[in-house]
Amino acid sequence: MKNSPFISAAVLLKELMALIVAKFGGTSVADVARIENAAGKILRELERGHQVAVVVSAMAGVTNQLVGYCTEVSPAHDAREYDVVVSSGEQITAGLMAMMLQKMGVTARSWLGWQIPIRTDGIHGKARIVGVETAEILKRLQGGEVVVVPGFQGLTDRGRISTLGRGGSDTTALALAAALKADRCDIYTDVDGVYTANPRIVPQATKIARISYEEMLELASLGAKVLHSRSVEIAMKEKVCLQVLSSFEDHIGSDLPGTIVTREDDIMEQEYVSGVAYTLDEGKVTLVRVPDLPGVAAKVFQPLADANINVDMIVQNVSSDGKTTDITFTVPKADLEKAADTIKAIKGLKYDDLAISDNVSKISIVGVGMKSHSGIANTMFQALADKGINIQVISTSEIKISVLIEADYTELAVRALHAAYGLDEE
Amino acid sequence: MKNSPFISAAVLLKELMALIVAKFGGTSVADVARIENAAGKILRELERGHQVAVVVSAMAGVTNQLVGYCTEVSPAHDAREYDVVVSSGEQITAGLMAMMLQKMGVTARSWLGWQIPIRTDGIHGKARIVGVETAEILKRLQGGEVVVVPGFQGLTDRGRISTLGRGGSDTTALALAAALKADRCDIYTDVDGVYTANPRIVPQATKIARISYEEMLELASLGAKVLHSRSVEIAMKEKVCLQVLSSFEDHIGSDLPGTIVTREDDIMEQEYVSGVAYTLDEGKVTLVRVPDLPGVAAKVFQPLADANINVDMIVQNVSSDGKTTDITFTVPKADLEKAADTIKAIKGLKYDDLAISDNVSKISIVGVGMKSHSGIANTMFQALADKGINIQVISTSEIKISVLIEADYTELAVRALHAAYGLDEE
Repeated sequence: MKNSPFISAAVLLKELMALIVAKFGGTSVADVARIENAAGKILRELERGHQVAVVVSAMAGVTNQLVGYCTEVSPAHDAREYDVVVSSGEQITAGLMAMMLQKMGVTARSWLGWQIPIRTDGIHGKARIVGVETAEILKRLQGGEVVVVPGFQGLTDRGRISTLGRGGSDTTALALAAALKADRCDIYTDVDGVYTANPRIVPQATKIARISYEEMLELASLGAKVLHSRSVEIAMKEKVCLQVLSSFEDHIGSDLPGTIVTREDDIMEQEYVSGVAYTLDEGKVTLVRVPDLPGVAAKVFQPLADANINVDMIVQNVSSDGKTTDITFTVPKADLEKAADTIKAIKGLKYDDLAISDNVSKISIVGVGMKSHSGIANTMFQALADKGINIQVISTSEIKISVLIEADYTELAVRALHAAYGLDEE
Repeated sequence: MKNSPFISAAVLLKELMALIVAKFGGTSVADVARIENAAGKILRELERGHQVAVVVSAMAGVTNQLVGYCTEVSPAHDAREYDVVVSSGEQITAGLMAMMLQKMGVTARSWLGWQIPIRTDGIHGKARIVGVETAEILKRLQGGEVVVVPGFQGLTDRGRISTLGRGGSDTTALALAAALKADRCDIYTDVDGVYTANPRIVPQATKIARISYEEMLELASLGAKVLHSRSVEIAMKEKVCLQVLSSFEDHIGSDLPGTIVTREDDIMEQEYVSGVAYTLDEGKVTLVRVPDLPGVAAKVFQPLADANINVDMIVQNVSSDGKTTDITFTVPKADLEKAADTIKAIKGLKYDDLAISDNVSKISIVGVGMKSHSGIANTMFQALADKGINIQVISTSEIKISVLIEADYTELAVRALHAAYGLDEE
């Protein structure tokens, strides 16, 4: 592993007798045998003397089936009733998980969103958690009981079930961990951690032992699908120590077998670049020879915002002729046509040409180390140039550099950057 | 139809603008198309100016699937968690039904057991409803909203979900109708009413237009599967006018197309015998030559009661030799072996032989008219004798006569009795 698996004193102390929130995703509870396997993970934590609150997703496929029913009734169904239907998936798993733990001799009880309650705002279908009442479940945990909570669901102040939107069960786990002041939140999934790059593309990719919230947030936003960015946001804000690990591997003898997402300070040995991510989800829009005048950018981007189109990278170069300039930006591929139509409808906007392309990919390198080290960007550009890959757009933040390239070069670019930053496994 | 479709003045008045509870069984909401069909029935009642509360079962097959998961986890699973898992089936249908009504332009909202709440005792898996808080839903109904309630579920005073056991959604519908003082409770199912006999056996069987609670209760207990006896008990106790009707037939132009279950006084034209029922669910136990002494019956039946074996018919004849007698009784076939073992284990009980048989069926005639008419029993015995059918055991109550016969003669006996009491369609 690239990063040292060194455990800071603070985390080590907590390990003596900790309160852990363990979350299992849909593939980890896909059937009764997998629920049994997941319950085994919980049992091991109990045997180590820890207290455990469990958050479960719906069994793989169930949510899609329930959403399918709702769409069949009406594509424009009521979000309140959608929440009633869809939340039942996690309810089923919660009951089964409590049963399974009981079968293993563990005292366990399910607690639905409305029973705890997990309070949310009233935005049905994509609610945000505003509070978790912990008194009763803390008492249960301290009494040695395992508390099983369905993810993805909460209760509005009008007493109705609300669901949290995509990635909602991760969010439940982190909100619960924050409210319980848990020592760690373990996200069990079908991969064994966060990798320096997608191992399907880069066989030399290695699991990252420890990564900062900021880097994880960038990676989550940039295409690493292992954690939803909303849940990383909560972890960062509430300072919850987060671990991503596999529910399908045996972790005997390993205390922290996955990737720990934590504060930068808790990471001893820091690489300049932690990982390479890519996404094929964005398309490119270029406005050719727009008048180089104040207010043009606003004229372009305000209507896109009004149309709920999420603009990511934006590049506007210095004018070469002093009169016109090119503006290039990216939007989700699904919104590409809509973005073009929106721009065509802008009155009084002059340009020579409007070009759109979905044949692009965004490649990003992420690392808190780059804040204090120069030359990181240059290494990227040189590595891509050496492979003959043309960079179309560049966008940077404090801890990441993203470039837009032709989609066909995606794998080549990811592999070249992974090697250039010394991330290849030795 | 055998009974007059005459509608008493009381019911007719109520029909002008009534509060109706409409319950749809699993086959009536088996998929989205059927939910749409069921919603159409509700729409028609609204168009007639009625207020409607809807009770829904789980989509056909869903409950079995959920029970299957629980059994797979452990045959001895915790009833509290079983209730969490299994109640989600009705929750799904409630949300979908509310959505479907909204799509049709109806204001509708689902109300789960814990939201109303429907209060139950704490016997998980077979709870009894102890109260329904109606203030909020009555207000909604009066405001023109359709209230959609999942059947089968309630809330214990410890704040946990409880389910009602077999036939639970009918029970929910009737308890809700009683609490709301509804004018009628319509039970939509896959048959169009209660018949004078099973039409699969007796093609001449006719739909009964009106039947008394007492008769319906006997029929439900005696093998007519259209209503669960617990729900008829509630209807009778709370004086809820109940209708059984088909959700798959178009009832245009017919106000009360199914079978009305109501007070005896509301039935104008009463047949002596309303229907013929049969069940193959019971087996026979005979103790041959038991000492004819006081206390022998108690010695036999107390251990059976202690073993939770439900004894139905019991016959003990006058001793012929002054010293011994035979005792015959019936128990559910599933308990037949257990009953025999229980008797063999009774210390100090003397008998010459213990015979058990599962090759029997119980044939019953039911009718409030028989209370005031003699010769009803004789007609039964003669009709069976004419077909050469031997009667093994006889048991009577005020409004029913049941006989035990050899199972092979079941259909023949039912048809003979149906004809003998003039129930065959002309």
